[in-house]
Amino acid sequence: MSTNALYDSLKQRLADGEWLAGQRMPSIRKLAAAGHSYHDAVSAYARLVSEGELTAFAGRGYFVTSRAAQIAVSHDPQSMDGDPLFKLLQGGQHYTKLGCGWLPPEWRDTDSLAKAIRRTARLEQSSLAEYGDILGHLPMRKQLCVHMKRQTRVDARPSQVITTLGATQALDLIARLLLKPGDQVFVDEPGNGNLIRLIQLAGGQVIGIPRTQDGPDIEAMQAHLATHRIKAFFCNSTFHNPTGGNISPHNAFKVLRLAIEHEFYVVEDDVYGDFSPGVRQTFAELDNLERVIYIGSFSKCLSASLRVGYIACAQELIEPLTRLKLLTCVAVPAFCERFVNTILSDGTYARHMKDVQQRLISQQVQTQKLLLERGWRFDIEPQGGMFIWAYHPELANLQALIARLEQQKILLMPGSAFAVGRDYQRYARINCTHFSQAVAQHFTVKSS
Amino acid sequence: MSTNALYDSLKQRLADGEWLAGQRMPSIRKLAAAGHSYHDAVSAYARLVSEGELTAFAGRGYFVTSRAAQIAVSHDPQSMDGDPLFKLLQGGQHYTKLGCGWLPPEWRDTDSLAKAIRRTARLEQSSLAEYGDILGHLPMRKQLCVHMKRQTRVDARPSQVITTLGATQALDLIARLLLKPGDQVFVDEPGNGNLIRLIQLAGGQVIGIPRTQDGPDIEAMQAHLATHRIKAFFCNSTFHNPTGGNISPHNAFKVLRLAIEHEFYVVEDDVYGDFSPGVRQTFAELDNLERVIYIGSFSKCLSASLRVGYIACAQELIEPLTRLKLLTCVAVPAFCERFVNTILSDGTYARHMKDVQQRLISQQVQTQKLLLERGWRFDIEPQGGMFIWAYHPELANLQALIARLEQQKILLMPGSAFAVGRDYQRYARINCTHFSQAVAQHFTVKSS
Repeated sequence: MSTNALYDSLKQRLADGEWLAGQRMPSIRKLAAAGHSYHDAVSAYARLVSEGELTAFAGRGYFVTSRAAQIAVSHDPQSMDGDPLFKLLQGGQHYTKLGCGWLPPEWRDTDSLAKAIRRTARLEQSSLAEYGDILGHLPMRKQLCVHMKRQTRVDARPSQVITTLGATQALDLIARLLLKPGDQVFVDEPGNGNLIRLIQLAGGQVIGIPRTQDGPDIEAMQAHLATHRIKAFFCNSTFHNPTGGNISPHNAFKVLRLAIEHEFYVVEDDVYGDFSPGVRQTFAELDNLERVIYIGSFSKCLSASLRVGYIACAQELIEPLTRLKLLTCVAVPAFCERFVNTILSDGTYARHMKDVQQRLISQQVQTQKLLLERGWRFDIEPQGGMFIWAYHPELANLQALIARLEQQKILLMPGSAFAVGRDYQRYARINCTHFSQAVAQHFTVKSS
Repeated sequence: MSTNALYDSLKQRLADGEWLAGQRMPSIRKLAAAGHSYHDAVSAYARLVSEGELTAFAGRGYFVTSRAAQIAVSHDPQSMDGDPLFKLLQGGQHYTKLGCGWLPPEWRDTDSLAKAIRRTARLEQSSLAEYGDILGHLPMRKQLCVHMKRQTRVDARPSQVITTLGATQALDLIARLLLKPGDQVFVDEPGNGNLIRLIQLAGGQVIGIPRTQDGPDIEAMQAHLATHRIKAFFCNSTFHNPTGGNISPHNAFKVLRLAIEHEFYVVEDDVYGDFSPGVRQTFAELDNLERVIYIGSFSKCLSASLRVGYIACAQELIEPLTRLKLLTCVAVPAFCERFVNTILSDGTYARHMKDVQQRLISQQVQTQKLLLERGWRFDIEPQGGMFIWAYHPELANLQALIARLEQQKILLMPGSAFAVGRDYQRYARINCTHFSQAVAQHFTVKSS
């Protein structure tokens, strides 16, 4: 019997109530006498302990965790079932997550990550118990400056960098810092629904700036600026969510001229930037962090569960951001920062990203081809990254398709999730890394 | 030459500019030829890589990190120098941190922590790359229920528990969830200064409820409730910050009666609770999470750099809290949660806390004795934990003493940091775990 089989059988017998809360489990020796290998028995128990089913008491053996056996677990609160992001996050292994904003698990280099974690644990023992540096682990901030220089040609000093709990907390801190209730901000239209809610939570009002093939629509910006005072423009410059578009150098230049003239900040959320194999345009490299607040993260490219992101900005914003970070969460877990430092400095990250970039290109090409063949169209041609923002000329809205796909265990993110002031019911965001020939067949539209 | 000596010498020579950005460092072989052991050379380079000074390229050797060598690091922004918490967090090893809210590093069991980290890395490889469960790793939430049952006699289901980035983020989420601008809340007086600022950030107004030996002053509560609508009472029940006091069973009962009658929440911040070796009174165990929102954390007792805390509350609050967590930070780093699961389930945490509890008791007794001998007095007798809230009848304010101590590299937290509506310039909070006979001599007051 393999480890899994022994584990499965113990788990089933626990579920069946063969052993009750607090009861001692058969000893390893007893399992061995029953024909299981010592290694199998130890592994099965270790797994059950790590799942909270059993508790180990040194020298006394394994016991059924006192309450766990009786607890009816409400894992998935009913009332959040309707939330597409919640469904995507909690949907488990059974779904094709075509609507999600992350890479499939099999794209992750878990072996290298595990190695780097063990290496970090070995090298950085003394750091485990202390509060981290509030701005973020200094050697890692140095590495981040090197990384930004290489990726975006921005010259930042480590003192201009502060770490955050992923890009999400970076956006939250910036919104809380910049906005007073009633303040107006520009966002990409279509854009990141979570960002819109964060801005609203801080009391801000969002104005959608339509996205063109070259970036934000400058004329729409100018029209609003003629009558409104704008605090900031939050946007993705590279591989924009949800269209996959980039900004052109000339567009970036015009946005920054408006930002200077009308004194608003450009909050450049560059979480997809590392997906780019070559040079691309950013706002930050032109302005070099005077009016641009730059956000990076390792959640999209490396591991969402690390939750390490960062803000690079003008020196004078660092102090108020640090105060706000200290007040609202104190610090990012030191171990996660040391881990990022390890993978940046030993080349693990660069190697991993090279591989991801290659796979993304072929996956984008392949997915675009499969969709185009089936009559799907894109207003903005994706420049790379994960996303394709697609519609089908014959479908006035995608509700029926989304419902049909869900029956096939394929989760698609409806266009409405990216709406600011417009109606996107005929659009969907498709994550090409979860697309395949098999999935494509469900996108065939039969003309009525 | 030992590893440290070789490391020190390389570090000094890097600082002196002997090798420039991008330059290749001497090979390991070359260092070995110069008389260093292979192991010493590898260790020194590994440490310099982890600090970001060097970058390793597989098969090519070690190079001076491209920008790091030239970067002038502003580690300690000037303008935050006046902030006592910032000074405590960034003050490094050179200070006796008498004013801080955490245990000395030498109290941490770093060996066990490092072992548990390596064990977690081994067992949980597949979890490293995925988004964690939004509520928090389920097996860990089961362990937390077992833990709460044992520590506070609260019966919570895992579905009533949500993890947070330490207790600080728990307080922030709860304040943002419960409060609208202008809402009034009760807090302990004296109380946690960070909490007061968090409530204000959410738009709330704080009303201080004086702390008595038995807990919050019921009559003061009643007087306010006669004229004000109160949304919540935020408090420490056990080893209150800054007085070290506990609540009595009868006091807890009276607070909860008022909470039910006047429909306010009791937000029980129990981050010091695990310091208690025996049974103590909590609000949560009486009310069993109907009106009580319970907060726990491993930052105070185990490791501040882990940043794992949790909220246990009524089932109907979990959904809105989950939405807010998803919106503002997505999740707590999965690895940190798996790590907490490991140390809860294998007994590491229980063993460690038993040791900490023992040391705390003798340190409290000893510090109280040293202070009383020098004429210091306590309005509230500390019941345990780290804190003593002390004044000296002959000192009308402690400014001169605090300045004198700082010259001796002893950082003390002034009473004003805990003020809500009163003046505490004659008080200081003393962390007994950083106190000693040597420190005590500075507390001798010469009568004028």
